[in-house]
Amino acid sequence: MTHTRQSWKISTERPVSYDISCCHDLLNPENKALLASNDKTGGKRRFVVVDTNVLNIYGDTIANYFKKNGITAYIHPFEAGEDNKSMPQYLDVLSALENFPINRRNEPIIAIGGGVTTDLVGFVASTWRRGVPHINVPTTLMGYVDAAIGIKTGINFNSNKNRLGCFSPPEQVLLDRSFFTSLPRRDILNGVGEILKLAVVKEPELFFMLERHGSDSINNQFQNSHCEDILNMSVTSMLAELEPNLFETDLARAVDFGHNFSPALEMQTELNLLHGEAVVIDILLSSIISFEKSILSKTDLDRIFSLTLNLGLPLSSHGLEADLLMQSLLERQHHRNGVQCFPVPTSIGACSFVEDITINDITSAVTFFQKWLQESTGLKERKSHEQHSQCR
Amino acid sequence: MTHTRQSWKISTERPVSYDISCCHDLLNPENKALLASNDKTGGKRRFVVVDTNVLNIYGDTIANYFKKNGITAYIHPFEAGEDNKSMPQYLDVLSALENFPINRRNEPIIAIGGGVTTDLVGFVASTWRRGVPHINVPTTLMGYVDAAIGIKTGINFNSNKNRLGCFSPPEQVLLDRSFFTSLPRRDILNGVGEILKLAVVKEPELFFMLERHGSDSINNQFQNSHCEDILNMSVTSMLAELEPNLFETDLARAVDFGHNFSPALEMQTELNLLHGEAVVIDILLSSIISFEKSILSKTDLDRIFSLTLNLGLPLSSHGLEADLLMQSLLERQHHRNGVQCFPVPTSIGACSFVEDITINDITSAVTFFQKWLQESTGLKERKSHEQHSQCR
Repeated sequence: MTHTRQSWKISTERPVSYDISCCHDLLNPENKALLASNDKTGGKRRFVVVDTNVLNIYGDTIANYFKKNGITAYIHPFEAGEDNKSMPQYLDVLSALENFPINRRNEPIIAIGGGVTTDLVGFVASTWRRGVPHINVPTTLMGYVDAAIGIKTGINFNSNKNRLGCFSPPEQVLLDRSFFTSLPRRDILNGVGEILKLAVVKEPELFFMLERHGSDSINNQFQNSHCEDILNMSVTSMLAELEPNLFETDLARAVDFGHNFSPALEMQTELNLLHGEAVVIDILLSSIISFEKSILSKTDLDRIFSLTLNLGLPLSSHGLEADLLMQSLLERQHHRNGVQCFPVPTSIGACSFVEDITINDITSAVTFFQKWLQESTGLKERKSHEQHSQCR
Repeated sequence: MTHTRQSWKISTERPVSYDISCCHDLLNPENKALLASNDKTGGKRRFVVVDTNVLNIYGDTIANYFKKNGITAYIHPFEAGEDNKSMPQYLDVLSALENFPINRRNEPIIAIGGGVTTDLVGFVASTWRRGVPHINVPTTLMGYVDAAIGIKTGINFNSNKNRLGCFSPPEQVLLDRSFFTSLPRRDILNGVGEILKLAVVKEPELFFMLERHGSDSINNQFQNSHCEDILNMSVTSMLAELEPNLFETDLARAVDFGHNFSPALEMQTELNLLHGEAVVIDILLSSIISFEKSILSKTDLDRIFSLTLNLGLPLSSHGLEADLLMQSLLERQHHRNGVQCFPVPTSIGACSFVEDITINDITSAVTFFQKWLQESTGLKERKSHEQHSQCR
């Protein structure tokens, strides 16, 4: 502290440190990973929030895990989904926590579920007693490669996505991809959206891997060794991007690619888009803008389009109103302190930022996208028809 | 980042820095202190939350200040008081903020009011967009020497004091003691409770200053030069205690003195105690416990008692149920990760921590306190009667 008679200055640094580990057989009572706490004084209670989809399948296994390990656990069922990433649900979890007192340091809150679950529970943990430790166990691909491994917690507020939250690192992130075996294909594809984002603006090798093994990996629910490579590359890439800018001091973030128009799309309940689905549409629109501004080549744009189609990512041009998309970008502009800082791919795996996007750029990109979608859908139908004729 | 095929470790540090400055004439449009932002890009909007008591007196002055400086300000009236340090009020301020968009970095939220106002607004700022800058302008003595100068933001949740919150430093704290001139005596005494806390466990010189100039300072609404010494000594002492342990890594905190039984007392609405009033009762009970455990001498205990009486701090033994007080201590024990870590004075201006407080210790301290209170009140009445007789 520096101090004169008229003023004081406080200066210090807060250490931030957390581990992300791949695990097998996480819910086997012999595996102690889930019980570890950075505080070694050893609390015997755990408040555990579990996505109801996970609870339906693993409920008994989870209860048994804590029981066998002599831990008094309260399992709080949480019905996930974007609509429940909300203030009422936040309050509901807080009330349950109030009724199940835990020590402040050695009894971490545990979140088991997808991105909505870990984001909301992280917000609970980061505001309860001004922050208690929490552990993330992502059970979806989206959580594994994105939501659960960073330090952003949060909930939506009214119709604003992630408007409330904290930067609050989990104590640990435990990655067990065997959870994916029970995921519907739509949820797998949802996570692929975030992997695609990293591939397009950050990792040419990851893009190549997706071209080569993406489709198989999806069919295989990310269980074989190629999938492991894709997952490791994604997590490494994401963390390498996050670590030097963990608190977003620099507002120019490559990982904001695909996250400029998508917030508004996602919050339109009638479109019924998952986060990753909205991100994919945003990726394509942003890539078109980059192409139309002569930043991205036609060859690279075509590669992005082809990969999207080959992976079978769900695409639709419903609800792509230029006004809505511009509104979403303006909102992001407030978030970036008044500047657009809009990330666009410059080639496969590289990115720069533009500041001059107008509503005309957006209108033109939407038209381009709609046309391409129509043609490629027509092409697909034609191909399918031809195959069908050949079979006969 | 360290990385093996199976794990990653993120390690970094978040810089924390903020200024606390004494100001004169803060609301004079020529004084630019209130407009300063750490981000020099210069936003032109301010969301300003003002305690309605302050607004009644300074409303026009505040509006004029921003207008004269070309700033579009939205002034949000906030009715302070412990009952409003609540979730509904937090949501109310958030909704107002939603309707008045501000940039993320260069348009800090401003809180003008007492501790409840700065705590709640700090919580709004620390959760909005995962943290936007905020400036604290304490207008009460309690805010000036305690609530507004630290980094703890928060609200009560159900009947739990400060259960939700963040560690989130203000960008700046602007101290202008001229605000005190409009405070009722009860609010002045409320703040003296926190000064007394520091004096008893940390600053022998401050204790001596209070013995010598405390009563005058109260009568003088902390406006003369002795008052300035007391205020500067209090702020310096508080910050010196906070800075090396800003995030409460060490759970043994001298400044928790007076804050073990007081949370429960304060939340009993029928007792109608202000924070500082509950703290003073806690200070006395804790000092008695220290004396009865042969840690504090009778001489020093008497000095603490005498000072409390001489300052005219409001004292009452209503609602001092040992069960309630023990419950409050147990709650604090959860907060200290399962240990009591109960601070007690060892002499004037020095402190240690005990771990073995039982309900019997509390019962005995309450009895001691009640007896002393009765005697000293009797004494006071007798003295007043004698003076009255002499006058006749």
